[in-house]
Amino acid sequence: MKRFTVKELFAHASALANQSVSVTAWVRTVRDSKTFGFLELNDGSFFKNVQVVFDSDLENFSDVAKLPISSTVTVEGTLIYTPDAKQAFEIRAAQVRIDGYSVSDYPLQKKRHSFEYLRSIAHLRPRTNTFSAVFRVRSLAAFAIHQFFQERGFVYVNTPIITTSDAEGAGEMFRLTTGTNDEFFGKPASLTVSGQLNAEAYSLAFGNVYTFGPTFRAENSNTARHAAEFWMIEPEMAFAELADLLMVAEDMVKHVIHYVLEHAPEEMAFFDQFVEKGLLARLQHVVESDFARVGYSEAIELLKTAKVDFEYPVSWGLDLQSEHERYLCEQVFKRPVFVTDYPKDIKAFYMRMNDDGKTVAASDLLVPGIGELIGGSQREERLEALKKRMVEMGLNPEEYAWYLELRAYGETKHAGFGLGFERLLMYLTGMSNIRDVIPFPRTVGHAEF
Amino acid sequence: MKRFTVKELFAHASALANQSVSVTAWVRTVRDSKTFGFLELNDGSFFKNVQVVFDSDLENFSDVAKLPISSTVTVEGTLIYTPDAKQAFEIRAAQVRIDGYSVSDYPLQKKRHSFEYLRSIAHLRPRTNTFSAVFRVRSLAAFAIHQFFQERGFVYVNTPIITTSDAEGAGEMFRLTTGTNDEFFGKPASLTVSGQLNAEAYSLAFGNVYTFGPTFRAENSNTARHAAEFWMIEPEMAFAELADLLMVAEDMVKHVIHYVLEHAPEEMAFFDQFVEKGLLARLQHVVESDFARVGYSEAIELLKTAKVDFEYPVSWGLDLQSEHERYLCEQVFKRPVFVTDYPKDIKAFYMRMNDDGKTVAASDLLVPGIGELIGGSQREERLEALKKRMVEMGLNPEEYAWYLELRAYGETKHAGFGLGFERLLMYLTGMSNIRDVIPFPRTVGHAEF
Repeated sequence: MKRFTVKELFAHASALANQSVSVTAWVRTVRDSKTFGFLELNDGSFFKNVQVVFDSDLENFSDVAKLPISSTVTVEGTLIYTPDAKQAFEIRAAQVRIDGYSVSDYPLQKKRHSFEYLRSIAHLRPRTNTFSAVFRVRSLAAFAIHQFFQERGFVYVNTPIITTSDAEGAGEMFRLTTGTNDEFFGKPASLTVSGQLNAEAYSLAFGNVYTFGPTFRAENSNTARHAAEFWMIEPEMAFAELADLLMVAEDMVKHVIHYVLEHAPEEMAFFDQFVEKGLLARLQHVVESDFARVGYSEAIELLKTAKVDFEYPVSWGLDLQSEHERYLCEQVFKRPVFVTDYPKDIKAFYMRMNDDGKTVAASDLLVPGIGELIGGSQREERLEALKKRMVEMGLNPEEYAWYLELRAYGETKHAGFGLGFERLLMYLTGMSNIRDVIPFPRTVGHAEF
Repeated sequence: MKRFTVKELFAHASALANQSVSVTAWVRTVRDSKTFGFLELNDGSFFKNVQVVFDSDLENFSDVAKLPISSTVTVEGTLIYTPDAKQAFEIRAAQVRIDGYSVSDYPLQKKRHSFEYLRSIAHLRPRTNTFSAVFRVRSLAAFAIHQFFQERGFVYVNTPIITTSDAEGAGEMFRLTTGTNDEFFGKPASLTVSGQLNAEAYSLAFGNVYTFGPTFRAENSNTARHAAEFWMIEPEMAFAELADLLMVAEDMVKHVIHYVLEHAPEEMAFFDQFVEKGLLARLQHVVESDFARVGYSEAIELLKTAKVDFEYPVSWGLDLQSEHERYLCEQVFKRPVFVTDYPKDIKAFYMRMNDDGKTVAASDLLVPGIGELIGGSQREERLEALKKRMVEMGLNPEEYAWYLELRAYGETKHAGFGLGFERLLMYLTGMSNIRDVIPFPRTVGHAEF
């Protein structure tokens, strides 16, 4: 008898009506009366459970009726197609084979558990509805990103995790040692905080490239938005200016939303119902909007005239705070907005100086509900301008010799952005704690499993 | 005028015949005579260069004729389609705009450089033919792997890089510190050597999952096959036995080969011509073969009767050496072969004990020219058998409490394998040093860039 996955049964239920089918899966619930019982089964292939009816004339009826949750069974039976019922189909079991038992104190009984508790059993939580949905969407979103860039000819680059450069400047770094040799690499080594500089080298060979890998921060911040280990996507495009970059960023965000709505409709509906009411409408609105663009200086004027008491006072030069970002995209533009051309003093050394000498060709994408989702810039491709900026910012150009050579050996306009993958996932699912979108999160004091 | 990538020009040359086109790219070579000159241009989108003819009546003829290699230009001109000529098309320049200069001492002049030298300029080597081909194939192979698993419903899991478990047992680990706090995570932390145990947890929720991420070894081995940082693919399948796993492994290898042959024919032909003669025939043979299967015990008999002087003598219990592996796949089977059911004493604790009590349901895939490409096993799902095996091998079951709970809370047959991504790339490209298939390799004494 052909074995089907739960996903296949749901996809082909009408074609399989009245046919014999076999399915191997875990028991999610068991109910029984004297004459028959119900099993809800799930094999992880699909968000929904298959319902199985088993009759008291099964020779192992009483064993099946007592099965602990998460036991493994193989059911053979007839698929009964009932498109007008609450369950579109069920399986009438001719046989229920018990392939493996669970124990009776299974910690995920059918009741709601707090997310805090579920973090303490991170090895089991993907078996719950919420985390099954989160981590399937994580997988689909990751693939959507690869697909987006590959279809456009971007080359995927695995930039190094271990680095001896102190120079990335994006935050506190973890240092490496080995038991026998503190300088395995000949000098102190750390975990990367960004693949950008390496990705630029590849962009200046392949034109368009992207990274997608883990990055690290040793920051002692215990918030719902910070983790010590998280994944970043960092595209870099040669022969590109800031405006080209923003088009790619906008298309990418829309592509990922489309992809997860199309490939995980059950999961997305679940988030809409149980995690964030209105999620689907919010995402649909984003997909249908042209993202706005506003210069930083104009944004400052908009904030100054706002009838809102901001905690941080607004003046030109301000590094926008979350309250300002959310006001701009939620109140003014009511859709995602790219703020461009920030003051040079609040941005990184590698961002391209504008002709005004005061601002750089940088842009952050602000989205309703989250604030900053993407940060990018045109990179300074002019060797002397880049060196000058490094010195102004107290950096030593000699430590960046290879990075400067990228300009000496071919002055080419290029631009890139960084997207924190977990922040995107929080945006897609409505989950509000970064610990709940990472399979085994690493934060201050926590690296279990 | 519409701007085309080099890839687009090659793809649509006949349709673009006699049309005006624009292309922005780097200068790879310049030749000139008194009355005209040639530029070869590449923008990284395609392996081959576009040839541009520019005439002495260009107002900046002498500037263009003196352009340093790797300068950036935008050429506007007419595409001349010459399908019977050596170059299928060229562009007659109406205008050559110089977008950015390079310097005259560019280190990649048009001559062959040793791979050793090119490693010392890892930021520039992707601009050479060989490394352009290697790293485009790396990108395509990575996507082919994602596509293979996603199309089959496998869920991509990002298993943690930072771990406080000592217990993975696959080699020396790098330790982490922070400047101010040696125990950021509350206990000593290291870099992962494998995502397998974590992936098993997700397999027992989603059924089929895979990892694809960096792993680390702090081993002081300075060989052409070892790196401190490399990427692994680790699928895990629930409701699966060893035979199911091998089918997936075989299909995956063939899928990746198909994909790179289809999507990088120019690059693969280059490897065949300049890196490993016969590469294409070898890969074609693999795609067309049914992979062989042989039990370890039978393999030992085959080796014992071989008319070959092995350096390591052959007897049951031997951990097969490279010479044995290559003899089996190259001389006996003449195609990839899965060796199955190894002695328990040479394999890891988590592999499922066979009924004979002497062997485990493990398998290595041996391929001609490389030896071991994949190592996998059915996992021991029986709680008591797993505990017993741990104790026999001197491991403390308490340190694996969560891993054991995966069995207590659902005894389910499952199986998985590990594939070193760089080893696969060496197999696909013929490159013989792992340092030459990693963008910025990390090995003993080396973590530059």
